Amino acid sequence: MEEIEIEELKEQLLTAVEKRDRQKVIEIFDTVPNIDIAEAVEDVDDVKTLLYIFKVVNNEYAAEFFAELSSDQQELIINAFSDKELVDLINESYADDITDAIQQLPANIVNRVLKVCPKEMRNDVNKLLNYKEDTAGSVMTTEYIEMKEDVTVKDAIKFIREKGKDAETVYTIFVRDNKRTLTGTVDLDDLIFAKEDENLSDIMNRDFVSCNVNDDQEDVAKMFKRYDLTAMAVTNDENKIVGIITIDDVVDIMEEETSEDIARMAAISDMSDPYLKTPVYKLVLKCVPWIIALMILQVFSTLILSGFEAEISKFAILAVFTPLIMDAGGNSGGQTTTMIVRSLSLDEFDKKDYWKVAWKELRVAALIGGIVAVFAFGWLMFEMSVGIVDTSSIQLSDKIGLIHGELLIATLVASTLFVTMIISRMVGCSLPFLAKLVKLDPAVVCGPFTTTIVDIVSLITYFLIWTQILNPLFFNIYYS
Amino acid sequence: MEEIEIEELKEQLLTAVEKRDRQKVIEIFDTVPNIDIAEAVEDVDDVKTLLYIFKVVNNEYAAEFFAELSSDQQELIINAFSDKELVDLINESYADDITDAIQQLPANIVNRVLKVCPKEMRNDVNKLLNYKEDTAGSVMTTEYIEMKEDVTVKDAIKFIREKGKDAETVYTIFVRDNKRTLTGTVDLDDLIFAKEDENLSDIMNRDFVSCNVNDDQEDVAKMFKRYDLTAMAVTNDENKIVGIITIDDVVDIMEEETSEDIARMAAISDMSDPYLKTPVYKLVLKCVPWIIALMILQVFSTLILSGFEAEISKFAILAVFTPLIMDAGGNSGGQTTTMIVRSLSLDEFDKKDYWKVAWKELRVAALIGGIVAVFAFGWLMFEMSVGIVDTSSIQLSDKIGLIHGELLIATLVASTLFVTMIISRMVGCSLPFLAKLVKLDPAVVCGPFTTTIVDIVSLITYFLIWTQILNPLFFNIYYS
Repeated sequence: MEEIEIEELKEQLLTAVEKRDRQKVIEIFDTVPNIDIAEAVEDVDDVKTLLYIFKVVNNEYAAEFFAELSSDQQELIINAFSDKELVDLINESYADDITDAIQQLPANIVNRVLKVCPKEMRNDVNKLLNYKEDTAGSVMTTEYIEMKEDVTVKDAIKFIREKGKDAETVYTIFVRDNKRTLTGTVDLDDLIFAKEDENLSDIMNRDFVSCNVNDDQEDVAKMFKRYDLTAMAVTNDENKIVGIITIDDVVDIMEEETSEDIARMAAISDMSDPYLKTPVYKLVLKCVPWIIALMILQVFSTLILSGFEAEISKFAILAVFTPLIMDAGGNSGGQTTTMIVRSLSLDEFDKKDYWKVAWKELRVAALIGGIVAVFAFGWLMFEMSVGIVDTSSIQLSDKIGLIHGELLIATLVASTLFVTMIISRMVGCSLPFLAKLVKLDPAVVCGPFTTTIVDIVSLITYFLIWTQILNPLFFNIYYS
Repeated sequence: MEEIEIEELKEQLLTAVEKRDRQKVIEIFDTVPNIDIAEAVEDVDDVKTLLYIFKVVNNEYAAEFFAELSSDQQELIINAFSDKELVDLINESYADDITDAIQQLPANIVNRVLKVCPKEMRNDVNKLLNYKEDTAGSVMTTEYIEMKEDVTVKDAIKFIREKGKDAETVYTIFVRDNKRTLTGTVDLDDLIFAKEDENLSDIMNRDFVSCNVNDDQEDVAKMFKRYDLTAMAVTNDENKIVGIITIDDVVDIMEEETSEDIARMAAISDMSDPYLKTPVYKLVLKCVPWIIALMILQVFSTLILSGFEAEISKFAILAVFTPLIMDAGGNSGGQTTTMIVRSLSLDEFDKKDYWKVAWKELRVAALIGGIVAVFAFGWLMFEMSVGIVDTSSIQLSDKIGLIHGELLIATLVASTLFVTMIISRMVGCSLPFLAKLVKLDPAVVCGPFTTTIVDIVSLITYFLIWTQILNPLFFNIYYS
C-alpha cells in the first residue's frame, strides 16, 4: 500500500473506533490485509483504542493482527488483557509467532504469557526458545500434520478437515513409518487427486528432502530454492521429524542473510536490526571498530610512502597520483571480490573451481589492465597539458628535446595501473577461496583485505618503476 | 546434495543406463529430486544416454527433468525427439517453463517447438514472450484456476480434481464476478474445511492483494513478503486476471534483485549471469567503464593535491597521510550509504524520514569522529615515535621546546579525520535520498559519488587546516 492509502486507512479506522462503529471496523478487517492495518496504527499507543479493535474483530484476525504489532503495543495489550482473553489469543496463534513475540518482551510479561499458555503450547514455545540462533530449529514451527504410511486417503482428508486448522500448513503432509522415521511427503493436491482407498505410502513422494534441527538457516533457504519447496521437515539426529519450516519463513531468512552479506562487504558488523530502531551508540559500535582496524592495516602503505619521502619532496607530482592508483586498485579488487563472493554464496561454484576462475580472471585482468593503462596515459597527458596538474617539479630542461617529463609521468602511472589491475583482480578472486578454505565467511575478510594488499602492491610498483627505471634512465642524468 | 553424493549418483545412473536397467533408472527418479539428477548429468552430452532416460521415466518426471537441463542438452533432446514425443513433453510442461527454455534456444529450434505446440499453449507462450523483462507479466504463468463467485464448494472441489493437474498451483483459487473482475481468492484448505453447499463468495478472502502486469518484479516480491503470500493474481489495466505468480518464482526474483543491488554498490554493471558462464569480454565490459568513470571523477582530488604541490615538496610528510584520510572517509561514507540503501530497498523508511535519519547520523558521526580522532592522534604519535614515518621534514629546531612537529602533524590528521567522519556520513546518508528524489536507483549512484565528494572535502580540510592554521601559527615563524 502507498503511504497515502495507509494514512486514509488510519483515519477511517480511528474514526470508526471513536464512533464505536463495530460494522465499519469489521469491514476494514475483512477487506484490508492485517499488516496494512498494523502499519496504520503503528503510532497508536492508546490502549483503549487497541483493546476496542481486539474486542470487535474475530479471534483469528486478532491473533494475526497481534503478531504484526510492535512489541511496545504487544506489551500494552497483554497488560490490559484478562487471563481469559490472553488464553483465547494464544490459542489462535502459532507457536512460532508467540516465540517471536516473546523474544522482544520484558521478562515479567514473558512469565505471564507462559503461565497462561496451555501446557502443549508452552512446551512448544520453550522448545523453540532453546534452539541456537540461525539454526533450522530456531525458525521451525511445531504445528504440522504427520501421519503413518498405512493411513488411507479418505482418513487423511477427514483428519485434515478436523485438525488441519491448528497446523501452519496443510499443503504438505509428512509421512512416517512405525518407528517414527520420516519416509515421505504427500502434497495436498495429490491427496485430492488420489483414490479414497489408497494408502499414503502409495501416493507419497519418496524423493523428498529434509534438514536437521542444527542446520544453518542459510543452507535451509538454499534447499528451498533448489528444490522449489513450500514446506520442509526438520528432523533430529535420529531422523525423526520434530518440526517444519514453511516458505514464508524462508523469504525472511533470505532477506536477513542478504543484509548480513551486504553489511560484511561494507565493513559493518551487523545490519539485522531496522536502522531507525537501532540506538545511536549501537550504530557507532557497528562501524567504528572497522574504521579503526582498517586504519591500523594501513600501516604498510604509510611505511612505503614514508620511505619515499625524499623522492616526493624532490618530485611532488608523485604524491598527486598516489590516490588515483590506490583507488583504481581498490575499486577493481572490490569488483572481483564482490562477484566471486556472490557466486560462492549462490553455490555457483565450489573450491575445486578455483583454477578455472583464476585463469578466467587473469585474462579479464590483462584486458582491463591494458584498456585502463591506455586510457590513463591519455587522460594524464590531458590533465597535465591543460594545467590541472602542476608539472613544474618534473619539467626537464630544454636540452632533452622530445623526451618530456610529462610523458614519463604518464608512462609511470599507466604501467603501474596495468600491474595494479592484474594484481587487484588476482588477489580479489583468490582471497574469497582462501577464506572458504580456512572456513571463514568470504564476505567478511574480502573487502578490507583486498584493498590493503592491493594498496601495498600498487605503491611498491609505483615507486619501484620510478626509482629503478624511469628516474635513473631519464631524470638523474640531467639533475645530478 | 554434497558434491560427493552427486558424483555417486552420476555413476549409479550412467551404469544403470549402460546396462539398460529400467528398474534402477525409475527407482532413481522416484527417490532423488530432479534437480540433483540434472546436476549429475550436466556434463553428459551423449544424446543416446539422455534419450534412454527420457524414454524410461514417466512423462511428468520427464517434463520437470527437461526444465532443469542446460540449454545445450535441451537442444540435443529436441532435435532427437519425434514430433509426437515433443508434443507429449510440452503437454506435461508449464507454459512459463517452456518460455524460459525457449528464450535460451536458437531460432530454428524455437520455431519447431512452437509449431508442434498445441494451439492454446502456443498462445500462452507467445503472450509470455511479449512482456517486458523484469515485469510481473514476464514472470507470471497463465495456468491457474479461476472460478465464478456463485460456484459451490462441492463443484469447485470436483473441478479441481478434474482440471487441477494442469494448473501451476491449486492452493489458491481466484474468484471473479460476471464481468470477469477479480473479487476474491479462496485457499484450498478453506475449501476443504467449508460446507459443500456454500458458495465461493461465502468463504473467499476479500482482503487479497494483486498486481498489474506492468508492475516491477521487485515490487511484486516485496508484496509477497509483506503479505506472506504463496500465489498472487496478475491483472491487466481493466482489473481482469491474466496470470498468476507463485512463491517459487519470487524466491528467484529476490535472488536476482539482490545480485543487482550488490553489483551496483560495487560498481559492476550487472551480475545476473552466472560468473563461469559469462565470457571474458563481457566481464571486461561490466567492469572497465566504471573504473574509468571513477578515474575521471578523481580529477577534483587531483586538482586539489596538485594545488598544494609546493607545500608537499616542503613537507613531504603531508603526502604520507593523504591516503589514510581518503580511505577512512571512503570507508565511513560507504558504511552509511550501504545501511541507508539497504533500508530504503527494504522499505524500512521513505523520503519523508530524511530529517529523522539525518539527525541520527549527525549524532552517530560526531561520536565516531571523536573516537576516530582520538585514536588517530595516538596511533600517529606511535607511528612517528617508533620511526614508521620519517618525520625529518617537520622536525623543528630546539628552540621551540615543547611544541613538537609530531604533535602538530598528529593534531592535523586527527582534526581532519573528525571533520571527514562527519562529512562522509552526512553525504553518505543524504545521497541515497537525493537519488530517490530524482528517481535514480540509490545503489547505483552512491558508492562512487559518496567517495568522490568525501575525497574532495577531506583533502580541502586537510590542506586548509595546514596552510591556514597550523603552518602560519607554528612553522612559518621558525622557517621564515
